[in-house]
This record gives sequence, structure tokens and C-alpha cells, in this order.
Amino acid sequence: MKIVFTFEPPFEMKADLNSSYPDIQFHYFQNAELAKEDMKNTEVIVTYGEDLDDEHIYQAEKLKWIMVTSAGLERMPFKAIKEKNILVTNARGIHKIPMAEFTIGLILDYAKSFQRLWKNNRSKVWDKSTPLNELHNKTMMIVGAGAIGQEIARLAKAFGMNVIGVNTSGGSLENFDKMVTLENISAVLDKADFIVSILPSTKKTIHYFKRSHFEQMKETAVFINIGRGDVVEEEILMDALKNKEIAHAYLDVFQVEPLPENHPFWSMENVSITPHISSTTKNYLPRALDIFRINLHTYTNNKERFINVIDLERGY
Amino acid sequence: MKIVFTFEPPFEMKADLNSSYPDIQFHYFQNAELAKEDMKNTEVIVTYGEDLDDEHIYQAEKLKWIMVTSAGLERMPFKAIKEKNILVTNARGIHKIPMAEFTIGLILDYAKSFQRLWKNNRSKVWDKSTPLNELHNKTMMIVGAGAIGQEIARLAKAFGMNVIGVNTSGGSLENFDKMVTLENISAVLDKADFIVSILPSTKKTIHYFKRSHFEQMKETAVFINIGRGDVVEEEILMDALKNKEIAHAYLDVFQVEPLPENHPFWSMENVSITPHISSTTKNYLPRALDIFRINLHTYTNNKERFINVIDLERGY
Repeated sequence: MKIVFTFEPPFEMKADLNSSYPDIQFHYFQNAELAKEDMKNTEVIVTYGEDLDDEHIYQAEKLKWIMVTSAGLERMPFKAIKEKNILVTNARGIHKIPMAEFTIGLILDYAKSFQRLWKNNRSKVWDKSTPLNELHNKTMMIVGAGAIGQEIARLAKAFGMNVIGVNTSGGSLENFDKMVTLENISAVLDKADFIVSILPSTKKTIHYFKRSHFEQMKETAVFINIGRGDVVEEEILMDALKNKEIAHAYLDVFQVEPLPENHPFWSMENVSITPHISSTTKNYLPRALDIFRINLHTYTNNKERFINVIDLERGY
Repeated sequence: MKIVFTFEPPFEMKADLNSSYPDIQFHYFQNAELAKEDMKNTEVIVTYGEDLDDEHIYQAEKLKWIMVTSAGLERMPFKAIKEKNILVTNARGIHKIPMAEFTIGLILDYAKSFQRLWKNNRSKVWDKSTPLNELHNKTMMIVGAGAIGQEIARLAKAFGMNVIGVNTSGGSLENFDKMVTLENISAVLDKADFIVSILPSTKKTIHYFKRSHFEQMKETAVFINIGRGDVVEEEILMDALKNKEIAHAYLDVFQVEPLPENHPFWSMENVSITPHISSTTKNYLPRALDIFRINLHTYTNNKERFINVIDLERGY
């Protein structure tokens, strides 16, 4: 059997896969374009999920399974995939540890005034009057209470925070003191000191945050977006920050990425920008390939009970 | 009864004390010098613990109790206090929440390369290749496993870290995977990714960290000092950092504070300096005064079972 990768894992990971499955021919390519010919007669494609188009799918006559080694599926050619009823699995679940750590790191960066302290450090200034705050007893609102949101909630509770969750159902969840539905967020927005959005990009979530939502937030609130940039129109977010309706925004995701060099966000005092990096760690690809291996075992045996299967209708 | 403060709490806190204890005359002064005359005939002094000398104590003929609204007691005039057998209580226990949050904030600052990301932000650089790491499965060594160290350990365990504790007894403690004595630290130093010192300044801990200790640490290790600056000779720490025996140091405390403007630490790439601020938060004084109130209740009633009593022989 042949498996086509549309990216090149590091040498050791390739060597490890090759030696683990001597009966499988792994063909690694630097990108989907170079992999195109080989895709035509493969049963399995492994991809980061941003490089396939309908043509690839139609031409791949033997294709049965696509393993996406990420979680975002917005760019997958689902129309062709549905027509051909191809199995799609992804790497969801491996993001929760790095993204939850990243989020707690950001709120501590804010509460402990670290950016101001590092600026003082560079200027050789010893200023004991720098205002430091605590997470303890503060309120964290997590918008999108899936696997990642639940891991953030678990850590927030360890810090003694009050945790409010927002998701589709509003049903109760461990480590959340209160849950509301996406429709009812206004009822609790004025309670939150930190608002973290981990919403994916779907028809339901595009431009979810409205002008009125930011008006309802505390003036001291910090908005953190590690989900998808299109959850709020950048114009609206920019106005809320300029008008000091909220105190600060930490943004890891944007409507256009990389964020263009002339974008006003770059030079706003109360915006901190990171380059869509919250889930990135040295452990990322090894963990994604662990999921691939589990499903590969299933694929080469009984083809029953794959993990992380994508519902082609819902798209996640 | 009269109580003399050698500092001025904010207006609301003073008003609150005055109205809670109508039978007590609270005399608030901006410093010990101004309070000197009033100390002579008071039973109780409330101080941050850095402003009293032997003369104050000898002159205060009616003095029975000193409440220190901090934890560091190095500058207390214990000779005179012992002679006159005066009760000393302090605010220990209130530091653990802010200091543990501060410590976790620092290690996340390092693991997530936040200082590099903020630098990129200032230069409008979108660099996805910034190396990000995880706390998960890393090893945290806590040198000084008292109340603060145990709170750090609790949080570190929530992040899935391995936690090694170092203290006088080496006896097992909750949230520590392993404990060693101060004498046996060398046996485990090469395991630690983060080494946090919270040691107080005592005869036993001055210059505790030796040149050989830094040689034993991982080259990737991060040394954090939020205890007292004299736990290591600055010359030794500076050499370890220059020779890349360790990767980075976060220093909140120093042999001389404020850190002099010409000190080499200020401009070292692999040193991050904060101005002895790890325990500072808006909640500090209210919490210290809560402890004062508990002991004041005891003092005005049966004088039994004070909390946070200092052993005058040990000095802590």
C-alpha cells in the first residue's frame, strides 16, 4: 500500500514511520503540487488540510482516506469529498495542551504587567509602582467550550478563577461555574474580566461578536482571540479598542494572515499580536502522527472505529 | 488602647479599621521617624518590618506586640525584641497566591517566547518560526518548599509538570513528586528545566547556590529567584549566564535593591529583571490587615492562640 504526504516531516519522524510499517510505501512531498501525480493512485493522503482542491480529489481515483494533521478544515474541498464519500479524520485534541498553556500565559502577561516590566528592564528602570493584579477570583469567559475550552477552564479553576462557558447547547460542563448558549452571551458579558474566543469558523460563528457585545463588556476587560479571525469584524474590534470599551486585546488570528504590514492593529498600544501560533510546539507533529498511526492501524485491519472522524455535512 | 502604624494605609482601609474598633485609637504615621514619640507609650506597633531599630524598642516601654505586615524579617531588631520578650507576628501566608501566579507567569513567558513575540509585534514582524515550548511534562524544581513553594507546586501539577522540592527536612509533601534536602540538591539538579528559589535570607541560606550547582544544571535550564538576592553570589550567577551553563535567569531580588543602574544584569540578553515585585498586588494590604484583625481580636480578648507568631530564636 502507498501513502502520500503533501508535506515533509523531519527526517527522524519519516525514518520512524518507514521502519514501523515496512509493508507501506510512504511518499513524502514538499507540497501538494509536487504530490499531484502520486495522488492519482493512492488510497491515503496525509495533509495539513490547506492545500487540496476539488481537482485533486476527483483525480485521485483510489482515494479512501484523508488524514488532516491539523484541526482547521475551512479550506478542505468538501464538495468533492462528499461526492466521493471519502473518510476524513483530523488531529483534533492535540491542540488543547499548548493552546490552554498559551491562554493562561497571556492572561498572566496582562495581570502581571510583564510587557511594562520588560520595557522597564530594557530602560534600566526599577519601578515598584508597576500595578500587578491576580487571576485569583477574577472571571474568565470561554466562548467555544469544546476540548480546548475545557482544558483552559480546568487550568483557570486551578488559579481560583470563576469560569463562564459559552457554547451551542449551554449544558453544564466540568470546571465551568456557569454555562450559557451562544445566543445568551449578553446576559453574562458584563461579568467577565477575560474573554477568550476559541470559536471555529463556521456559518454560525462568522461575525458572531457584535458592536453591542463590546459595549456590554467591562472597560477593564481583556479580549483574547485564539480561534478564528472572522469571529468579529476587525472594524468593530478596532473601534471598541480605540473607544476604550475594553482595556486590551491579545490577537493570535486575523481575517487576513499574515497580518498585512500596514494593518492598524500592529501599532495599537492596547493590542498584542502573535502570529497564529497558539497551538505550535515541538510536540505538535509527533502528536498528530500518533493519531495517524492509531487510524492507520484501524485502516489496515478492520476499518472499524476510526478516531477523530469528520462529519462531512457539518464540516467538523 | 492605642495602636501605632509606621505607615499610612489608604483612606478606606483606615476608615474601615477606625469604625470596626471604636474603642481603639489608631495613630497612623508616614514613617517610623514620625511615629517615634507615639511609640513610647503604645502596646502595639504595626509596621512593614524594615523601619524599626533597637532604640525604638528600648524606648517603647509599654510595647507588647509588633504586627509586621510583610514576611521578610531580616531587618527586625531582634536583639532588643528578645530582651523585652515582645510578641512578633507577621503576614506570612498572604504571599503564596500572587507569588505562585507570578512564577507560573514567568515560566510561561519563557516557554512561549513571549518577549520575542512582543519584540516582533513592535517591529511588525509576523514570524511563525518562533520556537514555542510546553510546560507539560517539564520538570520544575522548587527550592524552599514552604507555603509559597507548595502553592507553586500545586499549580505546576495542574500543568502536568514533574515537581521536585528542596527543603530542610526533605520529607514528602503533597503535589511534589520528589523531595530532597538542601544538602542533597546535587543529586537532582540535572533533572530540572525550571529552578525556582524562594529561600529566605538566613545564616543557612546565604550563598547557598555554589558554582558547582550551576555547572550541574541543564544548559537549557531557567533559574528564577523570587526569594532573596543573597542566596547566590551575583558573580557566580553572572558567570553561569555568560558561560551559557544555564539558558536564562528571571531575577526579582538582588544583593542590593534597587538594582544599581550600572549593574551588568540590566543589559544581559539572558536575564529578565523585575523590581522585587512578585508578591505585590492590590490585594496585599487588605489581606495583611485581615491577619492583623484576627490577632487583634485575640489580643483584646484572651491573648491565647495568636496566628503567624515569630519564633524569636529562629527569626521566622
